[in-house]
Amino acid sequence: MNRSELIQQIRSKQSYLCVGLDTDLDKIPAHLTHSEDPVFEFNKQIIDATQAYCVAYKPNLAFYEALGTKGWESLQKTLAYIPKDCFTIADAKRGDIGNTSALYAKAFFQQLDFDSVTVAPYMGEDSVKPFLNFPGKWVILLAHTSNSGAADFQLMESADGKRLYESVIEKAKSWGTPEQLMFVVGATQAERIAHIRQLAPDHFFLVPGVGAQGGDLEQVSRSGLTADCGLLVNSSRAIIYASAGEDFAEAAAREAAKVANEMKLYLSRFSGR
Amino acid sequence: MNRSELIQQIRSKQSYLCVGLDTDLDKIPAHLTHSEDPVFEFNKQIIDATQAYCVAYKPNLAFYEALGTKGWESLQKTLAYIPKDCFTIADAKRGDIGNTSALYAKAFFQQLDFDSVTVAPYMGEDSVKPFLNFPGKWVILLAHTSNSGAADFQLMESADGKRLYESVIEKAKSWGTPEQLMFVVGATQAERIAHIRQLAPDHFFLVPGVGAQGGDLEQVSRSGLTADCGLLVNSSRAIIYASAGEDFAEAAAREAAKVANEMKLYLSRFSGR
Repeated sequence: MNRSELIQQIRSKQSYLCVGLDTDLDKIPAHLTHSEDPVFEFNKQIIDATQAYCVAYKPNLAFYEALGTKGWESLQKTLAYIPKDCFTIADAKRGDIGNTSALYAKAFFQQLDFDSVTVAPYMGEDSVKPFLNFPGKWVILLAHTSNSGAADFQLMESADGKRLYESVIEKAKSWGTPEQLMFVVGATQAERIAHIRQLAPDHFFLVPGVGAQGGDLEQVSRSGLTADCGLLVNSSRAIIYASAGEDFAEAAAREAAKVANEMKLYLSRFSGR
Repeated sequence: MNRSELIQQIRSKQSYLCVGLDTDLDKIPAHLTHSEDPVFEFNKQIIDATQAYCVAYKPNLAFYEALGTKGWESLQKTLAYIPKDCFTIADAKRGDIGNTSALYAKAFFQQLDFDSVTVAPYMGEDSVKPFLNFPGKWVILLAHTSNSGAADFQLMESADGKRLYESVIEKAKSWGTPEQLMFVVGATQAERIAHIRQLAPDHFFLVPGVGAQGGDLEQVSRSGLTADCGLLVNSSRAIIYASAGEDFAEAAAREAAKVANEMKLYLSRFSGR
């Protein structure tokens, strides 16, 4: 999916919500656990219930890999089930030497046909670039993450006053255009989003950390929205586990609708300043 | 496998060679491509041919994920086939927020029963620690990698004169002991290995980059060996693709034996200074 198709979808749904499919066998409702593929069954119902309110789905690979080949099958079926107008993100945080990153790109863009994959920057340019060689596909590069450990290295300040995440953004901007490169910017540091928006005015940000991790959607939107929206805000647990009962899909729809309603407001209020 | 078992194996085989199972369908000999599972068939013959000369096997996950569920099955079969006295490394370079890293750990340590997994440090402490909660299992943390992109961020110098990879090593030493934590230190920067050995005198290093990537085994060994050996030196392409013909396994054995012979010499010459 290219940038204008993504923006078109955001305008038409008036939402920049991404639903994280962090589907955990230990957390899905009991009545599903006896179906043939409980993970896919759960995802299918979540997708049916939320697709009107979100523009993207983000399965986190760890949840599928923890189930071995069966998990990989659930992931394939889930990806095939996601409506074609929704943007898909393989939240995989990969990155390796060049020839190996090229194989990860093949795994996520050809084997699985995701629109995008999250990539970790530690190994530098040749670990990121192979993902940028696929027309219509996207790299979503970790810049400033939402977890407590983000402070360990990402905030490290170099002799010339630049923090590591700032260097990552600056260098990566020369590797990929806003048509193929987004950044992960955690919602738990809302004050930093405004700063990062100055560093990368034209790139989309994938913002995790709203919901279970405590990020504030209004602050994130005020700091990050652009005339092209420029944000995909992810919520996983707060939506997909809104209820642990048989009404989990309705509960997820209610939560997603609530977030989308807020987003509609913020789009009219903050977008296009 | 614990540290003393690993050291015991190194002493008994007089080798610290790790064979990288970067098995690529496009590179394996033509006569194997019609077998039911060419990747496993290739790995099986490589393992049979090299196990006398190496102490560890390191499948790189990208090569298996690029083949989807079939690749995951080949990986499972390969892991089950590796002799129990060999150390196994899932070269996966994972790392995510805490609850997600815990699932990756489950994938590699329980689903697949690897001895160790490579982990990327960008997301900090809570992304690494969940991997350290498994008795007898190891984290191999990226410190200074062997690729050209290593220079982009790993060498970044902070205001107090510390480079990023040095901060990674320093902090990680407080997260895990030498009984459960190793570092990835690229062979292409031999002069740095001596320096990193001073920073982490007791930790094992996994050293990629010897062979196809151009690292020098003698220099690496002189700089990195300790009384407990302290090194696992990986070679992938130079061994497993030593011949593209029907004699690929014999050729791999010859290459592995050559490296192991050198290592025997270096163990007597440089170890235990």
